[in-house]
Amino acid sequence: MKILIARTAGFCFGVKRAVDMVFDVAEKKSKGVYTLGPLIHNPQVIDRLKGEGVEPVEKVSDLSRKKVDTVVVRTHGIPQGDMDTLSSKGFNVIDATCPFVKKAQHYAKLLKDEGYKVVILGDKEHPEVKGIMSYAGKDAVVVRGAEELGELRGKVGIIVQTTKQIDTLKELVSAAIEKTKELKVYNTICNSTALRMRETADMAKKVDLMMIVGGKNSANTTRLANHCKSLGVRTRHIETADEIRKSWFKGMKTVGITAGASTPDWIIEEVKDRINKIV
Amino acid sequence: MKILIARTAGFCFGVKRAVDMVFDVAEKKSKGVYTLGPLIHNPQVIDRLKGEGVEPVEKVSDLSRKKVDTVVVRTHGIPQGDMDTLSSKGFNVIDATCPFVKKAQHYAKLLKDEGYKVVILGDKEHPEVKGIMSYAGKDAVVVRGAEELGELRGKVGIIVQTTKQIDTLKELVSAAIEKTKELKVYNTICNSTALRMRETADMAKKVDLMMIVGGKNSANTTRLANHCKSLGVRTRHIETADEIRKSWFKGMKTVGITAGASTPDWIIEEVKDRINKIV
Repeated sequence: MKILIARTAGFCFGVKRAVDMVFDVAEKKSKGVYTLGPLIHNPQVIDRLKGEGVEPVEKVSDLSRKKVDTVVVRTHGIPQGDMDTLSSKGFNVIDATCPFVKKAQHYAKLLKDEGYKVVILGDKEHPEVKGIMSYAGKDAVVVRGAEELGELRGKVGIIVQTTKQIDTLKELVSAAIEKTKELKVYNTICNSTALRMRETADMAKKVDLMMIVGGKNSANTTRLANHCKSLGVRTRHIETADEIRKSWFKGMKTVGITAGASTPDWIIEEVKDRINKIV
Repeated sequence: MKILIARTAGFCFGVKRAVDMVFDVAEKKSKGVYTLGPLIHNPQVIDRLKGEGVEPVEKVSDLSRKKVDTVVVRTHGIPQGDMDTLSSKGFNVIDATCPFVKKAQHYAKLLKDEGYKVVILGDKEHPEVKGIMSYAGKDAVVVRGAEELGELRGKVGIIVQTTKQIDTLKELVSAAIEKTKELKVYNTICNSTALRMRETADMAKKVDLMMIVGGKNSANTTRLANHCKSLGVRTRHIETADEIRKSWFKGMKTVGITAGASTPDWIIEEVKDRINKIV
């Protein structure tokens, strides 16, 4: 059986940067290192960080009961208020916010300061969007797509969750320009998501089975799996090699492997090795 | 036979303002009044102005052989260079540029000054677009629709010829956001065009014949006629009552009349009277 691994599988630029930053801190400090929220959407990486003494906390107030030395801000970023609180407490703050997310936060603030009503295209429960939202002013709104865009007044500014798809943005700007005389759009979509999606779709057409590796809580990984399924190829979404079953590979000639942006190389390697071992 | 006249037929705000301004000047000054280009796209109005001593000239250089007192700038506006020349010659300049077109010129300059590559959605041979273009900087481009949008670099600003349709703009912004990280759009479409089009379409569905009255050289009048034809209603585009033929009304029960933005009320009245007389 042939196994193909996608070139774009695994850590994107922002995740790799964040993970490197935290392991670097963990090497220097044996305790008192916390991440605010899980650093990335991958339970296995979070577990490995715990092994290095880096603990995640859910919210800023959880830090008050701890002996804190350093707080690492997650790749998705955090709300402005939380960032201010961390600074005011005198913690060492390591900002591992993805630079592309940082840009989206910056543009949200810029639009607000320039008097635009800010519309964020994204999922309002996603931590990245919660962070961006905090910079976008009180009358900012979050929409999942053009169909959620209500009446608009005055000038309108659009920002996008970095992992959104371009087609959704195209529909939104098209709907928005009918409702305003002035529209400013920052296309803050990160290319790596689109490139990964494209390579995955191309691969899916050439294989009998697609293995999608990554956190079940990762939106971008789940989207990879759903997209493969919609293309009609047999698809398995797993977090680790332990979930693999021999029966999946019966009659398969070619298997493709890809992974979400928060899946580390070592998990992808384990998956490949496990498949090689059992077939 | 029943005759309906559209509420939105005839002069729009900008045209009415311009015609009033020129008749006002003509009343005060018996000679030396010129318009740069035809004031509006309606030959009959231009003829009537000539009767009042107001002559159109094609270009600024044509004025050098004349005894000029006052120059009126047409509703569609003129290029910045021509405006500067008029001022430098010491003529009295009456700027009858439509305030909505003036806004589009202003936004074109603003976008250029803010470092945007300006894309003008419009017809590059139209005087309005030539005027706007002169404010938009050297690397500005004019496109008739999304399909003409080439590769883009840097941040992109969009301006629209005031008589364009919203659907064409929607397609353009949708195509543009895929090609840039920063897009600023001024929706400079004038509502009166859309309102007139909507009322005309509604009327076309209720009548046996649509009479579209206006200059054959007027883009917005021609578009009204084409739209009615596309809806399957019998349609006649005329400039004056003289073109009306009795045979057109054979078997017709209801006739609708509308007119382009540069058609004066007296021509619409003449058309109605003529129809009443011959049927």
